[in-house]
Amino acid sequence: MNVFKERIKRIQAIMKSQSTDYLVVAPSANFFYLTGLRTTADERLQAYLVPAEGKPVMVLPEMYREAAEDVEENSFELLTWSDGTDPVDLLLPLIKGHSALAAIDERMWAGHFLQVRKAFSGFEFTGAAKIMRQVRMIKDHNEMSLLEMAGRLTDKVMAEVLKVIKPDISEKELAFFVEGKLKEYGAEELSFKPIVASGPNTSSPHHHTSERRLIPGDLVVLDFGGLFQGYCSDMTRTFSVGKASAEIKKIYQAVKDANEAGFQAVCAGISCEKVDEAVRDTISRAGYGQYFIHRTGHGIGLDIHEDPFIVSGNQETLQTGMTFSIEPGIYIPGQYGVRIEDIVGLSENGPIRFNNFPRELIEA
Amino acid sequence: MNVFKERIKRIQAIMKSQSTDYLVVAPSANFFYLTGLRTTADERLQAYLVPAEGKPVMVLPEMYREAAEDVEENSFELLTWSDGTDPVDLLLPLIKGHSALAAIDERMWAGHFLQVRKAFSGFEFTGAAKIMRQVRMIKDHNEMSLLEMAGRLTDKVMAEVLKVIKPDISEKELAFFVEGKLKEYGAEELSFKPIVASGPNTSSPHHHTSERRLIPGDLVVLDFGGLFQGYCSDMTRTFSVGKASAEIKKIYQAVKDANEAGFQAVCAGISCEKVDEAVRDTISRAGYGQYFIHRTGHGIGLDIHEDPFIVSGNQETLQTGMTFSIEPGIYIPGQYGVRIEDIVGLSENGPIRFNNFPRELIEA
Repeated sequence: MNVFKERIKRIQAIMKSQSTDYLVVAPSANFFYLTGLRTTADERLQAYLVPAEGKPVMVLPEMYREAAEDVEENSFELLTWSDGTDPVDLLLPLIKGHSALAAIDERMWAGHFLQVRKAFSGFEFTGAAKIMRQVRMIKDHNEMSLLEMAGRLTDKVMAEVLKVIKPDISEKELAFFVEGKLKEYGAEELSFKPIVASGPNTSSPHHHTSERRLIPGDLVVLDFGGLFQGYCSDMTRTFSVGKASAEIKKIYQAVKDANEAGFQAVCAGISCEKVDEAVRDTISRAGYGQYFIHRTGHGIGLDIHEDPFIVSGNQETLQTGMTFSIEPGIYIPGQYGVRIEDIVGLSENGPIRFNNFPRELIEA
Repeated sequence: MNVFKERIKRIQAIMKSQSTDYLVVAPSANFFYLTGLRTTADERLQAYLVPAEGKPVMVLPEMYREAAEDVEENSFELLTWSDGTDPVDLLLPLIKGHSALAAIDERMWAGHFLQVRKAFSGFEFTGAAKIMRQVRMIKDHNEMSLLEMAGRLTDKVMAEVLKVIKPDISEKELAFFVEGKLKEYGAEELSFKPIVASGPNTSSPHHHTSERRLIPGDLVVLDFGGLFQGYCSDMTRTFSVGKASAEIKKIYQAVKDANEAGFQAVCAGISCEKVDEAVRDTISRAGYGQYFIHRTGHGIGLDIHEDPFIVSGNQETLQTGMTFSIEPGIYIPGQYGVRIEDIVGLSENGPIRFNNFPRELIEA
């Protein structure tokens, strides 16, 4: 059985257990995960309809027929529509029953949902994530190795970036350099717009990369990633421009220890919040608890942020095949911030890191 | 009155004329157009609620407060929510009445719409475009000049690309070069992933850029654009690698004539379909009608594809301030294709082109 048929089989079992009659998937990571087809959402409706039983149906604009036929392995029926016709007419005869439950891809455009809804007379609607997450959260060997390749690519780019960090280069120039190198080393796309923060800007975890130029004594936070065969990478390192002060060294050490404590805490059966706690406790013990102002991490795969989230209150337990970030940070308002982020996967033999660029403080 | 207050005032007048009680805008071009704030959609709900009367309300995650306060000019009320609380609780007290009509941003994620819907008990829902389009379709002087700047940037990049077109360079390398130059010349982002097609690949208008390397006698189609202060550019040129055959020259001339015919047809009061017809007729007269397989053009502004669409069947009439592409093409299956695309704006003094890179056939 091919991987997509197998995934559908697992999805349909979950649908039945959740009394969900239909799953409607839009161009998104879900779509790619279930079909192998990667398209972009636009004004024309594209939908993948999975019934709780039977063969899924892909509804696409005629212009995508060729692309769909390239991935078709007899795992779905393909219906296409041309400009001037209404794709809802294709859906209508497929939807059996009334007042049943349909799960909608959270990433579907509301405009398309308003269209699709007409085919689901009397239905209740719910989000698709609680079905999809259960399958997507557990990566198979192939997915793990793609995430590892994506991580390796990020490591290589970080090594190149380090070479150009020096006074007078700007955050934007660094970000541009990062983008170029990611593509040069084979990233199909960016996982997200690179974050480059320097000096006082490092005290904001989501700083919008600016024209600011580096000066000696600055910290520089670089947070970026690229896609490898659809799978994301995401890494953060913090460098010092020239010599770092004693206070910065102390903060840096606390973050590095927290990153390590998080990694060491990862094992099958531990809850996400316990991993967050291990990280948070390390920072608190160093006296900076109030300055760690975000969650410890997020799941990663085809999406840059997906389940499981490593956050206080999340009692979900880690299982073999889960992949997520561990990214503690300390942010002293108006002064500086440090973050060290790696992607961690839980393999049969325990946790592994997909990023291995050095975690020691580098004074560039 | 600031530009955003003025836009809201016009939107509210249209809402009343369409008996629409609320407009719900998601992070998208609409959001930026109405508020000046540009954020990205993610798992946390962001919404801009415009009632038919009274002050709009922006609902954002707490982490975006600072960004929102930067644009706040007293034109909306800002409400923020923190992780662990439900943003729907902020919306509930704002929604008056039942069984009324709410217009939803077509780009809102369905997951967020399913959330927001809870605050609109008994409401009917419709798409926001038929309100927003009326205002966004007509560009003011500032918007026109931003589109012109974006077009100029694309002209400059095309001139650079021409210098590197030669046998043996690959489509992907050319696309990478284009991306780099767009950013170097000040594009904040790409309007879309550049299309670079060569040789037989040029016969597909939406070719997915490949590893193919140029050989003498190839045509190369380059279709790309970048963002300038949020506004898009989009231009296509077709070059010959070395000498072009007589047949190619004939096809090229037909496309060039069609581009010119479309431009000349543009005036206030003409319908979109008449412009399409002028372009199509020119190609048909040259004997290639069946090979012009797509519409003549699309509106452009904050979105790369927006109203008005220059397509058969669209009886909307052009008005001063409208901006759109004119992009005829001829595609001979399996052999080659030619497309020449410019962005055209209708000013008080008639049509102007925002792209002015030469339209003559260049044998590079």
